[in-house]
Amino acid sequence: MTITADQFIAGTRTAAGRNPFNARDAASGEPLAPAFAEATPQEVDRACRAAADAADTLAAAALEQRAPLLESIASGLDERADAFVERAGAETGLPDARIRGELARTTGQLRLFAGVVREGAFLGVRIEHGDFDLRQRNIPLGPVAVFGASNFPLAFSVCGGDTASALAAGCPVVVKAHPAHPGTSALAAEAVEAAVAEHRLPGGVFSMLQGAEHALGAALVQHPAIQAVGFTGSQRGGLALQRLAAERHRPIPVYAEMGSVNPLFILPEALVQRGGDIASGLAGSVAMGCGQFCTKPGVVFLRRDAGFEAFRDQLAGAIAAIPPAVMLHEGILSAYESGCARLDAADGVSRLATGEAADGRARAMAFITDLEHLRQQPELADEVFGPAVLIVAVDAATPFTTVAAELDGQLTAGIHASDAELSGHAALIHQLEQRAGRVLFNGFPTGVQVGEAMVHGGPYPATTDSRSTSVGTRAMERFLRPVAVQDMPAAALPPALRDDNPLGLPRRVDGIEQPGTRQ
Amino acid sequence: MTITADQFIAGTRTAAGRNPFNARDAASGEPLAPAFAEATPQEVDRACRAAADAADTLAAAALEQRAPLLESIASGLDERADAFVERAGAETGLPDARIRGELARTTGQLRLFAGVVREGAFLGVRIEHGDFDLRQRNIPLGPVAVFGASNFPLAFSVCGGDTASALAAGCPVVVKAHPAHPGTSALAAEAVEAAVAEHRLPGGVFSMLQGAEHALGAALVQHPAIQAVGFTGSQRGGLALQRLAAERHRPIPVYAEMGSVNPLFILPEALVQRGGDIASGLAGSVAMGCGQFCTKPGVVFLRRDAGFEAFRDQLAGAIAAIPPAVMLHEGILSAYESGCARLDAADGVSRLATGEAADGRARAMAFITDLEHLRQQPELADEVFGPAVLIVAVDAATPFTTVAAELDGQLTAGIHASDAELSGHAALIHQLEQRAGRVLFNGFPTGVQVGEAMVHGGPYPATTDSRSTSVGTRAMERFLRPVAVQDMPAAALPPALRDDNPLGLPRRVDGIEQPGTRQ
Repeated sequence: MTITADQFIAGTRTAAGRNPFNARDAASGEPLAPAFAEATPQEVDRACRAAADAADTLAAAALEQRAPLLESIASGLDERADAFVERAGAETGLPDARIRGELARTTGQLRLFAGVVREGAFLGVRIEHGDFDLRQRNIPLGPVAVFGASNFPLAFSVCGGDTASALAAGCPVVVKAHPAHPGTSALAAEAVEAAVAEHRLPGGVFSMLQGAEHALGAALVQHPAIQAVGFTGSQRGGLALQRLAAERHRPIPVYAEMGSVNPLFILPEALVQRGGDIASGLAGSVAMGCGQFCTKPGVVFLRRDAGFEAFRDQLAGAIAAIPPAVMLHEGILSAYESGCARLDAADGVSRLATGEAADGRARAMAFITDLEHLRQQPELADEVFGPAVLIVAVDAATPFTTVAAELDGQLTAGIHASDAELSGHAALIHQLEQRAGRVLFNGFPTGVQVGEAMVHGGPYPATTDSRSTSVGTRAMERFLRPVAVQDMPAAALPPALRDDNPLGLPRRVDGIEQPGTRQ
Repeated sequence: MTITADQFIAGTRTAAGRNPFNARDAASGEPLAPAFAEATPQEVDRACRAAADAADTLAAAALEQRAPLLESIASGLDERADAFVERAGAETGLPDARIRGELARTTGQLRLFAGVVREGAFLGVRIEHGDFDLRQRNIPLGPVAVFGASNFPLAFSVCGGDTASALAAGCPVVVKAHPAHPGTSALAAEAVEAAVAEHRLPGGVFSMLQGAEHALGAALVQHPAIQAVGFTGSQRGGLALQRLAAERHRPIPVYAEMGSVNPLFILPEALVQRGGDIASGLAGSVAMGCGQFCTKPGVVFLRRDAGFEAFRDQLAGAIAAIPPAVMLHEGILSAYESGCARLDAADGVSRLATGEAADGRARAMAFITDLEHLRQQPELADEVFGPAVLIVAVDAATPFTTVAAELDGQLTAGIHASDAELSGHAALIHQLEQRAGRVLFNGFPTGVQVGEAMVHGGPYPATTDSRSTSVGTRAMERFLRPVAVQDMPAAALPPALRDDNPLGLPRRVDGIEQPGTRQ
């Protein structure tokens, strides 16, 4: 397996930069070859200009060309499966099965978007005959900057959800690879580059820049050619990019998915009936991927009542049995350890259980406190990225709806309840819908289904735009805007807007939905 | 006709404020009774809290309750038609026919949204059975602050497009009335207040605050209960609100429609074939409503070639014949006059024609320059709000696509062309679609059709969010966000998400569109 250390710029490779950096083996901390150069401002500029130059061609590309592009990328990724297992495994410490699973999710996602492109409903064609002849459709925003996330080296990285949805919408993409997995990123970039060439699209449809310094990301977001930003990562990172985007001469939207504590509420009957099972499931969800998911359940609210001790003891046992695990990189491990140390030192918080230990690896941890202490120290509910969970006992006098109303915006929120008690908690469900993008029942949030009904988003500070999702087919909407043409002569109409509907698109004509004939 | 001077707060009236201000007769400048008090911070707080308290009830209100609310508002406005003609006419100087026309647009808009609510497609229901049972629908964002515009005392004011679309989406509204037409606003507020009471909805669904100071608008945008802002007005005003919204503890979206110069391109054949007609039509569009439309054509590009003189002379004659007109208020007149003075003083700009004069009224004006001078002084293309237009001669060496590519974001852009030459200008059309929300052919942008294919939006700086429209049914999308429920027990599902679809909603189930049965 050869790893390309160069920048991928519009179908060409360059390596003008200095300040070389290496990925490190997540388990050993040893540097991995090759050394990657930091992309220079000139390389950023070239990639962005090439994206701008390619934008019209990609926007005009027939849906029959754009969909196969996504499928070819998926095939190219599949062909590199073994290389991903080796390289991504080394760079992230994630086990083989996880890498293969994540690869399947990533390729499935690309193929899902290919289907959406083929169907054509995303164009949102509307025709209306009034005083004027008005025809509306959605058009791509233009070049999108995508920031790879550290915790999903494939599914939220070089050709993850942001890139797939942007290309599906018809937007060229300039990726800033995450510096913790530059080799994995280079392998993925090869697949995209080859697919772009195979479908005879301009190279500027895709570029990828390597770099470990903040200046690179800033230059990308500030480049005038860039029209939108997709980001998955820390709140600090996301808000910094949003600030830069807002300060531009022409501000652009930033879709930053910044994580969450994903609160769970366990109602009394469920606690009595299956507190032990919930505790085991919770420990499994907390430990999954070493807790390095933005959907990891971080805070759990329940009554100190019947079933509490059983739940607590079961959870303590399950957490204590979690084997130590390699985290994505040293910085994440040390942030995790200081997050846990903050909880240890906080007033009114006790350590309930600690997972097994090993040098340089993360230990799972469970903490316990009560609502009064949480209210006095709201920072206890800040995300601790890693396998830690905080149990919060809520006294009988405080309704869960009150607790939910005090929560910040979340990607997910969950309820464990018996069917009987759920009917009495409509207000709690409603409150959680106000606070989160996804509300789940009798389950755990770490499984994210990639389809057309998923919402991976939520109110601030979970994301910078609650109206969007970064997973699922509606992710494309982030990169589209409506445009109307008025009294356009029939001969000039683009095929999507013609009366005879040569593309067979689903559309609305004078208020009547007409199904498409494409699938 | 009695005009209520009080604040309209959640079905009650208060008048705690000081610093009273009066509307002025637009024609005479004389103050009009009554005096309106500036809403106090406490009144802002009461209105916003009441909106937050009402949000759940409105969100949960059946579509069969929400649609009639909009229709009752429309009826209440219709009943006040004569009062509007009298009071809005005095406050804005707009003629009777315009007020009645705008009223019809306003009530038509409310009834249009009632239809959209009844149809239910806006809920965007999607059901998907995968590893999990996922069900997605759109929910309202919560209380919306609406800023009335000066130039449409009905259609973009107290119950204009922002209020209608927010209520249709299920969001309570707190309006800041425009201080130039507080009496008109009070009349409209009565209609909304009565409709809210008639349908037994909580009073907090609607409040309206009077005031002339910036502090009031700032307090509204900063209030934690407010979840989104709709604004139509100046760029300075819109950007100030956006800044305040971004600096909140929890930032919220601001949909500011900030105007535009709405460039028109006249292609050579059209100039030869019907330059005179285009000139007459242009003068009519420039003069309409005394040029006080955000869609007024402000800049026109053409070749100094065959047909140019005929066009120029016809335009000069038509502009010179425009009678003087009362502007909305003194401040707008003085801003208009200084805008024209700036053009008069600019290098390489000549005054082509001047409309008739009368004391205290606006005179239409046409100016002429060439592309070189415009490029040297890009501020020549800044919006001059009022009946002025700038003609820009473009030398034969510069393609119109190049000119279009240099334009800022616009609400509209237009082309006059023969059918034959349009086929050779696909690149120009494409470029204008990149720059504007609506591209129109062989017409003028001042007529805005309110329907489901309209886009009244566009790239920055025409608006703060190019993905949105403030006119037409898609305006509702600004105030909705998707939420998914996962594995929700059937008994707990809201009617919109139930398998048996008791509401008869159109929806997507496992990728298949199912038409609704509601209409």
